[in-house]
Amino acid sequence: MPITSFVEVQPDSHFPIQNLPFGVFKPQPESEPRPAVAIGEFVVDLSVLADAGLFGGPYLRNTDCFHQPNLNKFLGLGRPAWKEARATLQKLLSADESTLRDNASLKQKALLPSSKVQLLLPIAIGDYTDFFASQHHARNCGVMFRGPENPINLNWFHIPIAYHGRASSIVVSGTDVIRPRGQASQSPKSPPYFGPSNKLDFELEMAAVVGPGNELGKPIDISEAADHIFGLVLMNDWSARDIQAWEYVPLGPFLGKSFSTTISPWIVTLDALEPFISHPAEQIPPPFPYLTEKEPKHYDISLQVSIVPSGEQHESVVTRSNFKHLYWTITQQLAHHTVNGCNLRPGDLLGTGTISGPEADSLGCLLELTWNGQKPLSLDGNISRTFLLDGDEVIFTGCCKGDGYIIGFGKCSGKILPSP
Amino acid sequence: MPITSFVEVQPDSHFPIQNLPFGVFKPQPESEPRPAVAIGEFVVDLSVLADAGLFGGPYLRNTDCFHQPNLNKFLGLGRPAWKEARATLQKLLSADESTLRDNASLKQKALLPSSKVQLLLPIAIGDYTDFFASQHHARNCGVMFRGPENPINLNWFHIPIAYHGRASSIVVSGTDVIRPRGQASQSPKSPPYFGPSNKLDFELEMAAVVGPGNELGKPIDISEAADHIFGLVLMNDWSARDIQAWEYVPLGPFLGKSFSTTISPWIVTLDALEPFISHPAEQIPPPFPYLTEKEPKHYDISLQVSIVPSGEQHESVVTRSNFKHLYWTITQQLAHHTVNGCNLRPGDLLGTGTISGPEADSLGCLLELTWNGQKPLSLDGNISRTFLLDGDEVIFTGCCKGDGYIIGFGKCSGKILPSP
Ligand SMILES: [Ca+2]
Ligand SMILES: [Ca+2]
Ligand SMILES: [Mg+2]
Ligand SMILES: [Mg+2]
Ligand code: NI
Repeated sequence: MPITSFVEVQPDSHFPIQNLPFGVFKPQPESEPRPAVAIGEFVVDLSVLADAGLFGGPYLRNTDCFHQPNLNKFLGLGRPAWKEARATLQKLLSADESTLRDNASLKQKALLPSSKVQLLLPIAIGDYTDFFASQHHARNCGVMFRGPENPINLNWFHIPIAYHGRASSIVVSGTDVIRPRGQASQSPKSPPYFGPSNKLDFELEMAAVVGPGNELGKPIDISEAADHIFGLVLMNDWSARDIQAWEYVPLGPFLGKSFSTTISPWIVTLDALEPFISHPAEQIPPPFPYLTEKEPKHYDISLQVSIVPSGEQHESVVTRSNFKHLYWTITQQLAHHTVNGCNLRPGDLLGTGTISGPEADSLGCLLELTWNGQKPLSLDGNISRTFLLDGDEVIFTGCCKGDGYIIGFGKCSGKILPSP
Repeated sequence: MPITSFVEVQPDSHFPIQNLPFGVFKPQPESEPRPAVAIGEFVVDLSVLADAGLFGGPYLRNTDCFHQPNLNKFLGLGRPAWKEARATLQKLLSADESTLRDNASLKQKALLPSSKVQLLLPIAIGDYTDFFASQHHARNCGVMFRGPENPINLNWFHIPIAYHGRASSIVVSGTDVIRPRGQASQSPKSPPYFGPSNKLDFELEMAAVVGPGNELGKPIDISEAADHIFGLVLMNDWSARDIQAWEYVPLGPFLGKSFSTTISPWIVTLDALEPFISHPAEQIPPPFPYLTEKEPKHYDISLQVSIVPSGEQHESVVTRSNFKHLYWTITQQLAHHTVNGCNLRPGDLLGTGTISGPEADSLGCLLELTWNGQKPLSLDGNISRTFLLDGDEVIFTGCCKGDGYIIGFGKCSGKILPSP
């Protein structure tokens, strides 16, 4: 029998007491942002609980980490503090604990209906890195752009390939996405034209939120990598395929990506995901020792993308994938990132790359689903798409099915607005 | 007759009253960092002058921008505030102005010997972008890695090509650089090995420091781009060529660069560089309208790289180049960066890319100078180098020769320490 909360939680809610994802919100438009966890249809204001002296454990007693406009300070405290916060909150919110349950005035201050508050970007992101960790995605892109003979470069099987992304343009779910303008060309040898992107795409990703991090010059050992990951979010790495194709040789993606990247407002902790660990297949060739894990871990997280086409109300599911389809684990990604001495800081974001599965209906972007626009995708109601049109809304959801509860990520959505 | 200061400035100083570059320092190890300008052998503590009420102009009267640990808030105020600060400081420091000159106790608090203070990273860098704006560098790299037939991709002549760099590992001049470890390979088709980089290189660059910036979705017009650039620094984009060669296809440089990037502590303002504007040759093919400038501007800045080899005292000059050898202007770089709607923030850093000139002794990195290690470079004292050895120190300097004075950048240096 799973533990329950005095807060009513619907059986299909993403946010039961087993989850308690962390975020940041403003109760009123003019309020200061402050940390929260989600439970059912409510947000729990952690600054109120801290003011009431309810974080009495050794790690949180003397910190102002819940009186901050983002979670970075809390992230910097590390896993012992994260576990203490989670245990404290699970106890305070449980059905048989009276402290908060029977204190009507505190409860009214601390528990606010989610529908009435504004959710914000939960972290100040110092650096954002995007990996390329799905073999299915790497193969499909390789076949499309370099041909079927040798679709994946040899380096891909040895390195969790990644590039630096743009941190300033990361936005929270619900923020509109303005169609980027830029240069594109019919082929790398043809002269370019300039205009709004005609190949605007989503990329279904998740991202790891970094905890304490490391000093410059001191790599994080793979055996300690998990202690530097607080949790996961859903991420849409919006991509303008035409801009990207023209610009990316030889230094990688730039303006084809940097116009917007959307993340979900709630960070689901690795602690909440613990029951959903999934063991990946053996990696062949075996990775270098600095990437070799005693017990490699993925998480069994069902992911879904739907589109609400411009002018419609109804959403059509366009893909169903799973986090466990990745080849490289998030701990391998993190260890690789620091092996050269690069320093990670609290709040850094490590995107997984597009999470494509093996089947035709589990591909993580329109580039793959429509084979670069050659096979239009049928949506409900006699509507079809190659790439996104102005007014289209893209909605990602993700969840793990537990025994009598769901651990979910809520949603990560954005609607396309026309170019200026 | 150029204006002079009551502070004694040697004729070969980089920091006469005509320059007044901005930086951040700590007077004592335990002090709070605060903004400064350099003059001769002194730093001027701007927090002291602000406390004395000496910034009385309309833009600076009511701001705490000089009571900050970095210049970001000042940068966000924009060119009118920058010009006001410069004019105020030039007046206060001039030989015929008594306010500071004749106030011994204020002078003692405000003017500190540079040799006694610690210079810090002057900005909090939200995002760092590195361009690839020298045609000579692009051609040499292309010939080395893709052959002499078609060394430069067609896109290069239409786009100021760039990639996102790592912001966390940007350090101030004088910080040691730890040799990175990583994967490398004899060729893209050979299995990799792991170890300390054997091809550690410098890249001679400058970088633009961004001022106000723009909102997401609102590109900066090329005609306004200069108002978003506060000034320039020297930058060494340290590069591990073996790591970079193995990892960079298809998503660009990552761990081959992210272990350290060094910038000079003093930001020389565009206002101080105004007398050294140099007009670039016409660009053919002509750029798109969003990159077309009425009056394209480079700056005539002489750049020099020297190496103090491990165990030696004497520095050998290894290259002499000039900022004006770039193809794309910094205003074109900035306009391109935002054309897709990407937002820039105060303190963002835009590296120019390696500044190679046309001659064999004006190449901006060892990769080019030694043709990827095939032609060792002779240094003074019967010493030679292909790439950098542990203990080597690399020193960049840059300056403009004015009429009776020098506008200089000081130095940007770092010494290589062995891998852990
Ligand atoms: Ca991606
Ligand atoms: Ca560079
Ligand atoms: Mg993006
Ligand atoms: Mg670098
Ligand atoms: Ni960044």
